[in-house]
Amino acid sequence: MRIILRWIYIIIFMISGIPHPDLLGMPTLKEPLLDKLKSYLANKEHDIIREFNEFLSIPNVSSDRANIDRNAEFIKVMMEKRGLRASIIETDGNPVVYGEWNAPNATQTLAFYAHYDGQPVEPSLWIDHQPFQPVLRPGKLEANSDFPKPIRFPPSGCRLNEDWRIYARSSSDDKASIMALLAAIDFIRESGWALKNNLKFIFEGEEEAGSANLPAFLEKNKNLLKSDILFLCDGPAYYDGTPILFFGVRGILSLEITVFGAAVNLHSGHYGNWAPNPAMKLVHLLASMKDDQGKITINGFYDTAVPLTDSENQALRNIPVFDEMLKEVFAINGLESQGLTLKEAIQLPSFNVNGLRCGWTGDQARTIIPSSATASIDIRLVKGNDPDYFVEKVKEHIQNQGFHVIEEDPSFDLRMRYPQIVKLTRKEKGYKAQRTPMDHPLCRRVIQNLAKYLETDPVVFPSLGGSLPIHVFSDTLAIPTIGVSFVNYDNNQHQANENICIGNLWKGMEMFSALMMMEY
Amino acid sequence: MRIILRWIYIIIFMISGIPHPDLLGMPTLKEPLLDKLKSYLANKEHDIIREFNEFLSIPNVSSDRANIDRNAEFIKVMMEKRGLRASIIETDGNPVVYGEWNAPNATQTLAFYAHYDGQPVEPSLWIDHQPFQPVLRPGKLEANSDFPKPIRFPPSGCRLNEDWRIYARSSSDDKASIMALLAAIDFIRESGWALKNNLKFIFEGEEEAGSANLPAFLEKNKNLLKSDILFLCDGPAYYDGTPILFFGVRGILSLEITVFGAAVNLHSGHYGNWAPNPAMKLVHLLASMKDDQGKITINGFYDTAVPLTDSENQALRNIPVFDEMLKEVFAINGLESQGLTLKEAIQLPSFNVNGLRCGWTGDQARTIIPSSATASIDIRLVKGNDPDYFVEKVKEHIQNQGFHVIEEDPSFDLRMRYPQIVKLTRKEKGYKAQRTPMDHPLCRRVIQNLAKYLETDPVVFPSLGGSLPIHVFSDTLAIPTIGVSFVNYDNNQHQANENICIGNLWKGMEMFSALMMMEY
Repeated sequence: MRIILRWIYIIIFMISGIPHPDLLGMPTLKEPLLDKLKSYLANKEHDIIREFNEFLSIPNVSSDRANIDRNAEFIKVMMEKRGLRASIIETDGNPVVYGEWNAPNATQTLAFYAHYDGQPVEPSLWIDHQPFQPVLRPGKLEANSDFPKPIRFPPSGCRLNEDWRIYARSSSDDKASIMALLAAIDFIRESGWALKNNLKFIFEGEEEAGSANLPAFLEKNKNLLKSDILFLCDGPAYYDGTPILFFGVRGILSLEITVFGAAVNLHSGHYGNWAPNPAMKLVHLLASMKDDQGKITINGFYDTAVPLTDSENQALRNIPVFDEMLKEVFAINGLESQGLTLKEAIQLPSFNVNGLRCGWTGDQARTIIPSSATASIDIRLVKGNDPDYFVEKVKEHIQNQGFHVIEEDPSFDLRMRYPQIVKLTRKEKGYKAQRTPMDHPLCRRVIQNLAKYLETDPVVFPSLGGSLPIHVFSDTLAIPTIGVSFVNYDNNQHQANENICIGNLWKGMEMFSALMMMEY
Repeated sequence: MRIILRWIYIIIFMISGIPHPDLLGMPTLKEPLLDKLKSYLANKEHDIIREFNEFLSIPNVSSDRANIDRNAEFIKVMMEKRGLRASIIETDGNPVVYGEWNAPNATQTLAFYAHYDGQPVEPSLWIDHQPFQPVLRPGKLEANSDFPKPIRFPPSGCRLNEDWRIYARSSSDDKASIMALLAAIDFIRESGWALKNNLKFIFEGEEEAGSANLPAFLEKNKNLLKSDILFLCDGPAYYDGTPILFFGVRGILSLEITVFGAAVNLHSGHYGNWAPNPAMKLVHLLASMKDDQGKITINGFYDTAVPLTDSENQALRNIPVFDEMLKEVFAINGLESQGLTLKEAIQLPSFNVNGLRCGWTGDQARTIIPSSATASIDIRLVKGNDPDYFVEKVKEHIQNQGFHVIEEDPSFDLRMRYPQIVKLTRKEKGYKAQRTPMDHPLCRRVIQNLAKYLETDPVVFPSLGGSLPIHVFSDTLAIPTIGVSFVNYDNNQHQANENICIGNLWKGMEMFSALMMMEY
């Protein structure tokens, strides 16, 4: 029946004189899409990069509202130039830029999310240029060096090398996604393909500031945003440069543990051996939480995780392993994962001490018994783990080690009442993990069909190790969410000298064109 | 025979018309010395305080050579005014001010050591005045307050209250000792007592900078400094205000332990559970060095200590216990000493973590796996403990925990070769403890005779908990050394708002007059 309908359409197109996309060579194999993109870029790459540079030149730190508004306006114009219906939607924080492209015969509606704000910048750490002054380098800036030096963007006649990099804040995170999405629309239009899906674009302006207003925005605009699937476009490609599709992320919970000693730092000579040392109490406490084999020993930590499904396990097995390369890159020999590969290790909850602070070290060290010792901890959660439950488990564990647990600095009376006191604070509320079922029919089709169009199959992760509040989309819009990541993994995201390989921007266009065009 | 000689001297004095000190009431009981001092101060206290203020007004940070020289010159003049033979002796660092007062019939030569340099200052932390602008407060500056406010130094007619405090850098540490020593000479002279001992004064100018040139100075001037006993004048009185005589101090050794993870901080989401976390490795390592009962578990740590002698044990038993008061002062309930009192606990070697540094905490915390974690440690040594041996024991312990131990940051090759790497550095060479035998005849006489002159018996410590390189004096001059401490224990030594109770300065004078005058 569908085949008959398709031919009817084709015949109508033939009669109308407008060539039907299928007749124009709608790609069904990998080569054609890539070939078409390559010849498209031969003419258009300079236009894309010029527009991208203009976009990157607008400062986009979340707290800089005036420039955030300039970014929003710029994106709206970018959308309108391409014939999208675009609007700037105010929230209690920074605005969301929303755009739509409706296809006449669409059967599915696809939503694409990205963010246009960037991390704060420390200009003094940027080498050879300011963070919002994009420059081109003929390769990767070497660590502790200012080589290679920026080169001029070449004139239109000269081709751009795919390994060259554009350095600027948000060149990867996450203006690259917005640029690749909108450039994909131009490519699709110029290629003459008929769009088979309605497209909705949600570009947030405060992701790097914590997305505080995103849940309310989604809730309020539920109808406007109604879609069949949402693609969350952010993050780096795999280590070999292959784009990633990810179906989940870990949740996160940040805690701080402070052990108290005397009310003031004491002289370690006068009071050493006698006064309690909170640094020693803290190390014993932390050592009791995770053994020296990397196993978390807090009661209940592994109990509530939902095991991976067969499809998820199968996907996990298919992911290539780069552990040996990474060990070289990071210069490490021993691992904490005790036999698990990286891709396997990140499917489990983690307990990570990310900071210790107590007294002084180095030149500043002084011979004191410090009055307190603090550890900053992040806990990564997997599907099934409830943040509140985990806080409770940590608290119980600390109590079982003989500490009185409080949430504020202890009063004198409290200090005199309890021999051992810990302040346990939850630094952010935290949020749960998200894992979209890979068996969902739309998800299966994404994986299967995408492979037909792309040069290389994307790497498919049941869950990444990092955390994003993707559950907000799934919970509010009640649709499957899939992450799409394509920028070079060594992009210095969140740091100075952020960059993108030009070739990765083209990979994003390839990926997004396929996702927008293909049948679901 | 001695009695006959004495009467001959007295008769000579009677003939000469000059009153002999014994006839003038040379004190043999406690009351007279104190009474005499009190009536002396009624006339002279303002002169002493004026001179002291002038002395405190000269900045004395060890690194400020121009002002160090002004201090040295000032002290030389102070000595010369009192008829001492004084000189400034250059060293490879700051000069030593040396002075002598020789008694015609002296049988003993007493040396007194103090230092005229002070700790660095942070003027912004000083309340109501600059550190080298002495002010008077009618009581103790309360914590986190600027009460009580400074008052004017009263005119000569009004008496100074003993509880009033002078606030200035080095008001306690250690210009107080120099002032009290030189004021004691005036007091002795004005009281008309005949001095029975030769006096030598050694005032160092770089104690707070580590006394790097003191050993060479002592060695070079061995003959000049030849004495029978040396009093080291520094440090606070006991908690109840009673001056302290101490016969020993602990030695010290400062180490730093750094555990390495990856060469860079890693994203705790992407690599958590997989990459090694040096913070966790450090806490397990430190926890293995000292158990949660406060017992050091490094092999050999308690083996080489020389036990206290009977006299030392007896002295220890005589020391009053203020542990309950201190627990209130410091707002602590549980102790590390597991049943030992403070005075007992400090007779043992200690292992103290004085600093931890790794990643970030608080508002700065970020979700990383830190690339390294550092602990700063001080080890206090008791008599018999060799610093080199202890470094070796710590190193062995770390190796036994499976770490490769190095002294510099690891190269890439080293990182790739060893799964666990610790950098162990010795921050200063450190030095051994010193314990002058209390059974030495001169020491016994100091204890016995001093009690006759003072209002209150001093508290006698076989060893204090703190560390001073006193062994340098004992080793070079080969004489017994005894420490004398009289400033209020809450003097904010080494901190902002350093101060001295005026009454403690008088206690110093009382103590020093007795030490200078008495028979040995």
